[in-house]
Amino acid sequence: MVNTLLLPELREMLAQGNDAELGEFCTAMNAGRTAEFMEGLTDEQAWQVLRNTEVPRRAEIFGHFTHERQVAILRDNEPGEIAALIEELASDDRVDLLQELDKARVAEILPLLPWKDRRDIQRLQAYPEGTAGALMTTEMAKLDETLSVRQALDALASQSEYFETIYYLFIVGENDQLRGVVSARQLVSALRSPNTPLQDLIETDVVTALTTEDQESVAAKVERYNLLAIPVVDEARHLVGIITHDDIIDVVREELNADAQQMAGISPLDTDFLRINLFLLSWKRGIWLAILFFTALFTAFALKYYEDELSRFAWLAWFIPLIISSGGNSGSQSATLVITGMTSGNLKLANWRHVMAREWLVSMLLGGFVACFGMLVAWVVAPSARDALVIPITLFFVVMCGCFCGASLPMIFKRLGLDPALMSNPFVAGIVDILGIVIYLNVARILLS
Amino acid sequence: MVNTLLLPELREMLAQGNDAELGEFCTAMNAGRTAEFMEGLTDEQAWQVLRNTEVPRRAEIFGHFTHERQVAILRDNEPGEIAALIEELASDDRVDLLQELDKARVAEILPLLPWKDRRDIQRLQAYPEGTAGALMTTEMAKLDETLSVRQALDALASQSEYFETIYYLFIVGENDQLRGVVSARQLVSALRSPNTPLQDLIETDVVTALTTEDQESVAAKVERYNLLAIPVVDEARHLVGIITHDDIIDVVREELNADAQQMAGISPLDTDFLRINLFLLSWKRGIWLAILFFTALFTAFALKYYEDELSRFAWLAWFIPLIISSGGNSGSQSATLVITGMTSGNLKLANWRHVMAREWLVSMLLGGFVACFGMLVAWVVAPSARDALVIPITLFFVVMCGCFCGASLPMIFKRLGLDPALMSNPFVAGIVDILGIVIYLNVARILLS
Repeated sequence: MVNTLLLPELREMLAQGNDAELGEFCTAMNAGRTAEFMEGLTDEQAWQVLRNTEVPRRAEIFGHFTHERQVAILRDNEPGEIAALIEELASDDRVDLLQELDKARVAEILPLLPWKDRRDIQRLQAYPEGTAGALMTTEMAKLDETLSVRQALDALASQSEYFETIYYLFIVGENDQLRGVVSARQLVSALRSPNTPLQDLIETDVVTALTTEDQESVAAKVERYNLLAIPVVDEARHLVGIITHDDIIDVVREELNADAQQMAGISPLDTDFLRINLFLLSWKRGIWLAILFFTALFTAFALKYYEDELSRFAWLAWFIPLIISSGGNSGSQSATLVITGMTSGNLKLANWRHVMAREWLVSMLLGGFVACFGMLVAWVVAPSARDALVIPITLFFVVMCGCFCGASLPMIFKRLGLDPALMSNPFVAGIVDILGIVIYLNVARILLS
Repeated sequence: MVNTLLLPELREMLAQGNDAELGEFCTAMNAGRTAEFMEGLTDEQAWQVLRNTEVPRRAEIFGHFTHERQVAILRDNEPGEIAALIEELASDDRVDLLQELDKARVAEILPLLPWKDRRDIQRLQAYPEGTAGALMTTEMAKLDETLSVRQALDALASQSEYFETIYYLFIVGENDQLRGVVSARQLVSALRSPNTPLQDLIETDVVTALTTEDQESVAAKVERYNLLAIPVVDEARHLVGIITHDDIIDVVREELNADAQQMAGISPLDTDFLRINLFLLSWKRGIWLAILFFTALFTAFALKYYEDELSRFAWLAWFIPLIISSGGNSGSQSATLVITGMTSGNLKLANWRHVMAREWLVSMLLGGFVACFGMLVAWVVAPSARDALVIPITLFFVVMCGCFCGASLPMIFKRLGLDPALMSNPFVAGIVDILGIVIYLNVARILLS
């Protein structure tokens, strides 16, 4: 997937030290595409290319490198140049990057930054991971409530290079107390009467996030109200930062992946699969495997209990995996539908009767469907047609039981105030396994005796 | 969760026909919050409230209603008023809504719309679901390349009410040929020299989407380049629309939910779980249950093959579910990690050696861990310590086999150009079940003979 189109040229320019052409390369395309064309270079070479353009552009292209490359560049190059680069990065991104460098390296770079940036970094670092504070950037368009439209545009014109976004202009009073918001669109529309005071345009009912608020809750607000950015305030409603839409997409992706992992019986990783410590990964998986193991242990007790039936009708044992997997699979399907429905907000707990009624109908259809296949197979194996009936009847009830457990258990968890994704698919399958065996051998006991 | 704070007051105002106060209610808060306070009203009442404010505001609040309420309002009220409302809605949203009304109703409303809107709706309806064309809106800030900064701002000021966003201004030449983009930020910064021609500010290297492009690919571009909106062009590079960040969040959520469903063995639903036709839902689940049933059938053949061992050592059968579920669970874990890693772009196919090496280490740890539990349990049940060893040894290899299959199968699918999520967890589990039984009974054959 690496874009190799310009690689030979770039390598040649680097070899010849052709700084002018390298500088031109850095500005010829948009920053994202420029970074893409450099994917085939080493981290070292990529930095050599970047050094041929001005620092703001350098930071812009750098922002599109992969996380690994960004860390490598910050780690391995001259501290003065790195400090200049860091000064230009968005305040939320640079905090994330600095956290990945070792302490000695950070101590080398930080003193070279202007006092204001240093303070900003330290403040952002203080917010715990996963809160609005840790996600926000401090570069936002902040305007005093006393300005007019004309003055506001002038103020923006002189500082707009520093802002990550100007689609919302936040209007503040004394001590950065948040008063309201004006959209860039409104400001531009008001240009025809440039002396209008900002206060006439202000929307005072602003949706805000608290610095300590959970990132999932922030993302829900942004999605619900279709915001481009959300202002972050402290307890006393002082504007301290904003969270922009691109960070929200990351949060949504992160949360859904965490749910998917939880549904598969893995405690959410928080780190990339390829970067997480192997012992930590084993722990996050092992703990669930252990829980599931002890759940599955009941199946062994159940089978031991039906020892007699199993020894008299040996062919019953052959179908055990088939039966429990049919129940487990229909259970996982229902659980996944209910969990994804609830996390995406389409399915509310109040709908539970509706959900269960639908599941009941679907499970009858699915149970009947799978039972037909089961009948065909059992016919071949079982000694008589009457004996063979054990398999389809069992399958029918096991699939119904799977759907019922799969749909209800996540909703019960939700009702108890727990994360429904905790009622992971393997856990549902484990419970259905036990019930499946009990159903199977009781049906067998009745029909075969 | 329904906000009931103002419900009694709203109901009273409606009963008394207090139009002035209802009108005030509609403008007192931001549109999203206003819609929230109306959640407890009937659809009929909600519309009665909305009628007390001006049409643009009405449309804004309407945009925050649930999809069900939106459809109900469009279906049940006076066509003239509904047409006026539809005229104000974003062009992408109204097309989605009209698709849910029956044809007779649409035929009643459409002729009441201005010709321009009608044509726009018909054009957007022509794009197939899931493409950039179907996702885009046609309200974007489009400026002629010959304007100056001052003229551009004036043009914007006079039309900005019609645009969904102005953070990017698209610069077009003849016949709306896309020339480039200027950000609102750049335009505002350039205000100090208002006679600068737009052409001096233009970024010509624009990332675009084709009308026919798949929505997943569009979302990937927006995420990759951190865009606020992406312009949509036709084959001849005419600008026909834009896709905004909020639609992208929806696409990301939709795709990840589809993956989660696929991973649980359900063909992606495309519709809400609560709204999808029950026979369609049963089909989308049944087809996978059938595939999984026939995979699981091999376990029955395998067990039949080892008939002798099973009848001589009856206690072996008791552990079958425990052993295959341990394998299946570790397999689902690995598959989910690899699939979510690949869909979020953190894990590339080129990393396969790295992935497999890590999985190998983790599977040894997990296998050893589960084997310890297995030893404890087997000790109690098996006739001798030597016999008991069958269980831990089997568990160790089954867990390793689960991790190996779970990690490799999705990558193999990806390599073959198929969707890795197709290699669903139940399918991986099914394969591991069969291998698990073969491992189990061969270990038993060696140790117990």
